[in-house]
Amino acid sequence: MIVRRTEEVKAEDVRDAGASGARIRVMIGEPEGAPHFILRHFQLEPGGFTPRHSHPWEHEVYVLAGKGAVLGGDREDKLEPGKAVFIPPDEEHQFRAATDNPLTFLCIIPRR
Amino acid sequence: MIVRRTEEVKAEDVRDAGASGARIRVMIGEPEGAPHFILRHFQLEPGGFTPRHSHPWEHEVYVLAGKGAVLGGDREDKLEPGKAVFIPPDEEHQFRAATDNPLTFLCIIPRR
Repeated sequence: MIVRRTEEVKAEDVRDAGASGARIRVMIGEPEGAPHFILRHFQLEPGGFTPRHSHPWEHEVYVLAGKGAVLGGDREDKLEPGKAVFIPPDEEHQFRAATDNPLTFLCIIPRR
Repeated sequence: MIVRRTEEVKAEDVRDAGASGARIRVMIGEPEGAPHFILRHFQLEPGGFTPRHSHPWEHEVYVLAGKGAVLGGDREDKLEPGKAVFIPPDEEHQFRAATDNPLTFLCIIPRR
């Protein structure tokens, strides 16, 4: 068993093109021995966003805190704590914090 | 994209032998088209617990609210919001709420 507090995992800036004000912590990943999927923690500062992009793997997301919005395909939905989001493979998507609020969420991806 | 509030997903009692006071919501699963892993939401009432058992698949867990403890192998650790837990395949484990507090967490498993 591995138990980790969020704060003890180093937060890295998301450096992908098209990201702004976004930090990621890999809570459970390959170094921890995750066989199938990776548990990641994202913090977007107010006005921050992840890249608007698509890729062949899915996202499963759960909002922990804050306010924002998600773009998925041609839809947009508001985000708040307790909302779960499924982004299927190859669907264009983007996560955005509100301009006056941060947004914190978990995002799980398959191990490649 | 699928977006679901936690409260709009029906909670089912965990009926496995050895469970008590535990409810599960499958937030993103096979009916939603999850290709690789299933995002589940657990609520344990004060004093509630999941079965003490082991199985060939891993758990990746993130605590959302409340207080409790996790048993993993021969270790026990306290749980509180913001803690992530990795239970590797075949390790005996159990999640327990405190006697005076509920415990709410996400638990992701691979799709079988």
